[in-house]
Amino acid sequence: MNRPNNAKFVVIEGLEGAGKSSAIALVRDFIEKHTAQAPVCTREPGGTPLAEKMRDLVKIADDTDPLCDESECLLIYAARAQLVANVIKPALNQGQWVLGDRHNLSSLAYQGGGRGLMSLVEAVSDATLKGFKPDLTIYLDIEPGLGLQRAADRGALDRIEQQALSFFERARTTYLALAESDDTIAVIDASQSMADVHKDIISLLQAQRW
Amino acid sequence: MNRPNNAKFVVIEGLEGAGKSSAIALVRDFIEKHTAQAPVCTREPGGTPLAEKMRDLVKIADDTDPLCDESECLLIYAARAQLVANVIKPALNQGQWVLGDRHNLSSLAYQGGGRGLMSLVEAVSDATLKGFKPDLTIYLDIEPGLGLQRAADRGALDRIEQQALSFFERARTTYLALAESDDTIAVIDASQSMADVHKDIISLLQAQRW
Ligand SMILES: Nc1ncnc2c1ncn2[C@@H]1O[C@H](COP(=O)(O)OP(=O)(O)OP(=O)(O)O)[C@@H](O)[C@H]1O
Ligand SMILES: Nc1ncnc2c1ncn2[C@@H]1O[C@H](COP(=O)(O)OP(=O)(O)OP(=O)(O)O)[C@@H](O)[C@H]1O
Ligand SMILES: [Mg+2]
Ligand SMILES: [Mg+2]
Repeated sequence: MNRPNNAKFVVIEGLEGAGKSSAIALVRDFIEKHTAQAPVCTREPGGTPLAEKMRDLVKIADDTDPLCDESECLLIYAARAQLVANVIKPALNQGQWVLGDRHNLSSLAYQGGGRGLMSLVEAVSDATLKGFKPDLTIYLDIEPGLGLQRAADRGALDRIEQQALSFFERARTTYLALAESDDTIAVIDASQSMADVHKDIISLLQAQRW
Repeated sequence: MNRPNNAKFVVIEGLEGAGKSSAIALVRDFIEKHTAQAPVCTREPGGTPLAEKMRDLVKIADDTDPLCDESECLLIYAARAQLVANVIKPALNQGQWVLGDRHNLSSLAYQGGGRGLMSLVEAVSDATLKGFKPDLTIYLDIEPGLGLQRAADRGALDRIEQQALSFFERARTTYLALAESDDTIAVIDASQSMADVHKDIISLLQAQRW
């Protein structure tokens, strides 16, 4: 896309514990060196005051009023619409790079693949994003069991992280299938040591024609 | 629909100040006499603990993070999915009647007509409700100016009630057009005295083959 400063929207994706947070620190530094300016960093769902409140509704478990799958999906898209309108697009239009911890691909994988709601996800995705998408998505691919173990070592698991392994298996299959058919999505083997994952990410970034 | 006790889902619709709240009291009494059981009463957006939190996000005005139209629409559908899954369908399936203060027609009118998001609304509506709809909708038709004056006399206006008159004009046009093409939607002239409005509602209810 042609934006001031040739600003790009880069997203890090992957299952729980894939290593997104440390990858983001790495990519953030790369972008800061490359553009002489720190990117605007976002996380999804969330990233604006109202979107963070929507995130809270997705994350909490209420046994008396369990969040239904459709509602989870729509809340996440409500948060995304808010973030895109009030943070991501304004930043890009001002020439600031944006670095996202998750974006639409997470919904395709988790709500579409994991929950089996692909037709709802595609309808809402098309109608809200209208073709808006990252310039580059770095998908950190990991076996769900390994990622969840890393996440569990880090602390208590939230409502999403407590889903069955089969949920994450379906999400991973969807991530890989979508990466296959979209050349703006790069797959990195996140089961490697952190040093090797980071080496792969740097090679990928250096290969971009930015 | 064939449900235990022939249970029905009845909805009251209309612009701000149309007189929905007092109509609901009337219809509630009618149903209680007709079925010897009080209906489950719902309001939208809201009606479950989580859906009420989504309602709060729709109603508050945050100047630093204005709710975008798409996000408003998706939040309302997230709340509706939650209400339908956890309250309305379980009640009907147990043979309890349900009486709703607003439902999907409000979104078609306000978000579809008022905000101009009809294609998003239709996509989300179809994908979440999958044909589920009220057995009878009583639409209280009123000129927006008159309704807003009644609402203003009652107290401070919320974020939605503060929209321009033209927003409500578009919503009213949509309400009327949809009522025209759906014989489960009855139009009542809500500019009449409360006594006459209530007389019309009772006639309508008595004419149902329940
Ligand atoms: N390649 C790796 N090898 C071993 N441990 C790793 C690796 N990458 C990350 N970790 C560790 O695994 C844990 C989860 O990593 P991180 O928080 O970056 O994952 P994440 O993808 O951001 O997870 P979440 O989806 O929960 O935000 C952290 O303790 C991190 O230090
Ligand atoms: N037919 C009528 N004539 C005059 N006043 C009316 C009539 N119907 C209702 N009112 C008054 O108008 C005000 C708004 O009515 P009500 O609260 O029932 O509307 P509502 O449709 O529920 O509004 P909202 O959309 O804000 O919930 C109340 O003070 C009510 O007493
Ligand atoms: Mg993380
Ligand atoms: Mg009312």
